[in-house]
Amino acid sequence: MDLWFTEEQTRYLKLSFQVKEVLENKHSHYQNIAVLDTENFGKVLILDGYIQVTQLDEFIYHEMIAHVPLITHENPENVLIIGGGDGGTAREALKHPTVKKITLVEIDREVVEVCRRLFPETSASLEDSRIEVICEDGFSFLKNTPVNYDVIIVDSTEPVGPAQSLFSYDFYQTAKKALQDKGIVVAQTESPFYNRELLQQSLNHVKNLYPLAGLYLAPIPSYPGGLWSFTLGSKGNDPRQINYTETCFLKHCQYYSQEIHKNSFILPPYFEKFMEDME
Amino acid sequence: MDLWFTEEQTRYLKLSFQVKEVLENKHSHYQNIAVLDTENFGKVLILDGYIQVTQLDEFIYHEMIAHVPLITHENPENVLIIGGGDGGTAREALKHPTVKKITLVEIDREVVEVCRRLFPETSASLEDSRIEVICEDGFSFLKNTPVNYDVIIVDSTEPVGPAQSLFSYDFYQTAKKALQDKGIVVAQTESPFYNRELLQQSLNHVKNLYPLAGLYLAPIPSYPGGLWSFTLGSKGNDPRQINYTETCFLKHCQYYSQEIHKNSFILPPYFEKFMEDME
Repeated sequence: MDLWFTEEQTRYLKLSFQVKEVLENKHSHYQNIAVLDTENFGKVLILDGYIQVTQLDEFIYHEMIAHVPLITHENPENVLIIGGGDGGTAREALKHPTVKKITLVEIDREVVEVCRRLFPETSASLEDSRIEVICEDGFSFLKNTPVNYDVIIVDSTEPVGPAQSLFSYDFYQTAKKALQDKGIVVAQTESPFYNRELLQQSLNHVKNLYPLAGLYLAPIPSYPGGLWSFTLGSKGNDPRQINYTETCFLKHCQYYSQEIHKNSFILPPYFEKFMEDME
Repeated sequence: MDLWFTEEQTRYLKLSFQVKEVLENKHSHYQNIAVLDTENFGKVLILDGYIQVTQLDEFIYHEMIAHVPLITHENPENVLIIGGGDGGTAREALKHPTVKKITLVEIDREVVEVCRRLFPETSASLEDSRIEVICEDGFSFLKNTPVNYDVIIVDSTEPVGPAQSLFSYDFYQTAKKALQDKGIVVAQTESPFYNRELLQQSLNHVKNLYPLAGLYLAPIPSYPGGLWSFTLGSKGNDPRQINYTETCFLKHCQYYSQEIHKNSFILPPYFEKFMEDME
């Protein structure tokens, strides 16, 4: 059977890949959840038609969203992950020995269930005793939590559907209140080529709310345009000037390194100019 | 009309984009030449079904293939471009005031003709008095040229069809003979995600033949996987340790900068490891 999946990357751009087998395809309360086995990417998790995780390149995304804020903080103990039901971000956060507790708030219980079954390489982390998985809306959880976190990681889906509120000014403001004095928030903020307005908006929210703001990039071949952005707000250390108080986790990294961390904040001139023009 | 073009990026992966208008679609002696006007990428040049140049991102490719070797050389006067019939690489090379002569050897006269008509932003450079355009096979030209060049830039199509020989050991050996004592060769060497064997092979050829070899990367959203590789061989300076004797061209760059140059040679650990494993 010649079976293909097609993702609408933009209104005018589609990526299609050949499917060996449909391992899962169902509707949860929140979204469509599909897992496909493919030649090009290995197993792929797709939510509402958008690629979330592929076995080919998930390590790049998960290492960059986790290690950059955690190493910038220097002594992260208490971590909140919003989204990330596949467990990949949690897996990376667990590599830091300072981390005592990770609270993972995933809105969709069925994403966690599907990933526990079909993505053991990311979801095995969820069995760790330092992890608590809570299935509810991440923004609501954040508004009501009495805890102050060292690092909040927003590992969300696209800014349509259940994740929409996670890109708002209110969200970043609420996150700031739920952070310790030297706390850090980081969020995936889409393609710098195809979704610049959202990225600019997120960065402006962070610049207006946090003493330090940063934008960093990583190449992720299965995502639109192959380059992804992350926006970081810090009440403490500058992510561009870091002291490696801990380096053991580096030997378990495939993409992240000290040089890659530094370089990921260097933007090309046209992109710097674009970001300035938007201010 | 709902018109779409589809590129087969790998056997299992396709990119499709919506087409506003087909501006050109013909067969030359060597290949199919098409130019499409699109919503996502602006005008796109396609040779034998593969995207070569898009108005959205051509500056990234052309700046990186030209400025990295030219600035590494320090005093490039005589430049040979093999391929590059669109004129984009020549446009970038002309930004260096030391460059006195550029010989552009494009196998397909009709590519030059089509680009002169439809891509003035890249092909206008071909009217410069420092440029000589020769329409013949690049490898044959190189074998017979009595000139020794400071920099040879291989701005070729995919390693199928007319460009196949440009990725061979023989080619890099012939290029070495046609270079001055401190000469530099650079070539586009495809996707580091989807065409690693070719990249590794090219890098091995260069390592075996040149005192210094380097591999650098740039994000190009319209190319497969969104990340592209360039392989460089040097008989003189190290591309990782450069003195900027000339910086005026920088203000005309949209992607290239001194920091981007340095960073483009930094590979993530998994990729370093892969390249070592292949040796």
